[in-house]
Amino acid sequence: MTSTAVTTYDVTGIGNAIVDIIGRCNEAYLANVGAAKGSMRLVDADEISKIYSGMGPAVEISGGSAANTLAGVASFGGRAGFIGTIADDEFGRIFTHDIRSVGVQFNATPVKGSLPTSRSLILVTPDGERTMNTFLGISTQFDESHLDRSLIRDSAILYLEGYLFDRPEAMRAFKAAANEAKRAGRKVALTLSDGFCVDRHRAEFLKFIREGVDIVFANESEIKSLYETSNYDDAATKARNDIKLAVLTRSAKGSHIISNGSDIEIAAMPIEQVVDTTGAGDLYAAGFLYGVAHGLPLETSGKLASLAASEVISHIGARPAVPLDRLARQKGLIS
Amino acid sequence: MTSTAVTTYDVTGIGNAIVDIIGRCNEAYLANVGAAKGSMRLVDADEISKIYSGMGPAVEISGGSAANTLAGVASFGGRAGFIGTIADDEFGRIFTHDIRSVGVQFNATPVKGSLPTSRSLILVTPDGERTMNTFLGISTQFDESHLDRSLIRDSAILYLEGYLFDRPEAMRAFKAAANEAKRAGRKVALTLSDGFCVDRHRAEFLKFIREGVDIVFANESEIKSLYETSNYDDAATKARNDIKLAVLTRSAKGSHIISNGSDIEIAAMPIEQVVDTTGAGDLYAAGFLYGVAHGLPLETSGKLASLAASEVISHIGARPAVPLDRLARQKGLIS
Repeated sequence: MTSTAVTTYDVTGIGNAIVDIIGRCNEAYLANVGAAKGSMRLVDADEISKIYSGMGPAVEISGGSAANTLAGVASFGGRAGFIGTIADDEFGRIFTHDIRSVGVQFNATPVKGSLPTSRSLILVTPDGERTMNTFLGISTQFDESHLDRSLIRDSAILYLEGYLFDRPEAMRAFKAAANEAKRAGRKVALTLSDGFCVDRHRAEFLKFIREGVDIVFANESEIKSLYETSNYDDAATKARNDIKLAVLTRSAKGSHIISNGSDIEIAAMPIEQVVDTTGAGDLYAAGFLYGVAHGLPLETSGKLASLAASEVISHIGARPAVPLDRLARQKGLIS
Repeated sequence: MTSTAVTTYDVTGIGNAIVDIIGRCNEAYLANVGAAKGSMRLVDADEISKIYSGMGPAVEISGGSAANTLAGVASFGGRAGFIGTIADDEFGRIFTHDIRSVGVQFNATPVKGSLPTSRSLILVTPDGERTMNTFLGISTQFDESHLDRSLIRDSAILYLEGYLFDRPEAMRAFKAAANEAKRAGRKVALTLSDGFCVDRHRAEFLKFIREGVDIVFANESEIKSLYETSNYDDAATKARNDIKLAVLTRSAKGSHIISNGSDIEIAAMPIEQVVDTTGAGDLYAAGFLYGVAHGLPLETSGKLASLAASEVISHIGARPAVPLDRLARQKGLIS
């Protein structure tokens, strides 16, 4: 098989395998537990238990940024795989069931031991904005040995979740995975995941991107953080020089695709009511990656991305509630 | 303190402490796993795992019939308590968090051992109807020793979930709880829970009701099963003679309250779309019990019941998504 062989999968992603615990809270509670609205922070077992005890009733829904993206790719009818680490516990079984039940290939063997499967307490404020408090648990054991290399070689695109840059072993695994994909002639995509995460690892992110990432997803605060500027246009100019294909999301302002110096603006899809923004960026990436893997024009890919994001913010939970291929057909974006 | 003292709680319920795993399936899948649509059946660990592996992505939300009712009473602003058995595991922590976070008193000590906290796989078909497959786990250990007797004495109404009639130890605990309530001058309410459950224990249900239940909740199939008739009017006539206050729910036909020989008909509250009928009966009971505990007329109590049921079937999950006291005020049912 040569590097240009037809691939079995459109996209394989690597990220934290997380079950989301989603509940509502008011702005005062966020301040009370010291969480910055809209961010993701890592917390330990004691802290997550403290925050949990004070929040409202919750629902548990499988999540994880890259995992949500792959669930989205599958919902468009794409062929998707996921690589992440789970423990041998209820949350591990829930995560595995949910990602497999939407057709995503996931072959992880649960890791036995004392650390539980990752969970993220997601506090949704009345404005629909989500603030995440993630306890990584067993995901801290993820390293190069967990890579499913044949899945990576068989996928047109490898998609990497920036959150994993927080641990050196995971960062090393990322580089190994990207090299594996490159050697097989595949594309590598990266999402910056979080402005604070970029702050913590700016140099590593830039080096990794410049060494061979094909597609970078970032929201406004992430791209500004990457280039240490408070001006969006400055950040976009720098991205234009550094990144082959930069996909910049700007919430209600829509998104901005920069490819070989040319710019495409995609309007945000209007929706009736924002219920929960969890997964907006993840599902945006799903639509875009599906489009690129299927050779669709960048503008169509951006519209699929915008459509998927608008679906996921109209309900609780970070994975699609209705088949995205049906929505895309209704909008005439795919046939 | 005499039996007529002001109570600390409006309603305390006894039931299975269950986390619901709710996902969609088609009619063919129900037939495939041998489940009768609309029913609840008990399954073992192997069977629940088999059914789970074949269903779609799911969300986990705290449930349990009586527990849902108490969450509803609290949502109306009522003072509620719950008695049920949990294990020392994630689902036990989820159940405890959710019921306490809505303000329901719940003092259970997790039981250590090999049995997990109860869970119910709820399969929702495209028509919004739910079919439940319950693995009781640690709830099979519930017996008289788990009764929180002071909570029972301090509550105006004791509410019992008929599902517990499936186990002799639980049935004995019910009788002990009812006696405790009666001695303290409290009311005893019972829900028949499920037509198949009534089939299995008809004689015990009738004996228990005739020995001193004040309020009986039943849907059409349950009351027909209790009196072994296929005719609703026959069943209602028999209920009129046997039961002090019978509250009969008839889905879209509304509900029928029979008290001291007089009948009150309550129309079903029209809603835009039935999303998931899980919890409809439980929330109906919540509204009615809140009304009775607060000395409201039976007709108003029936309207509060109907309002609560209509709210819960408009979304996924068996507990209210918005404060029921606010809805009731908007409708002018409470001030």
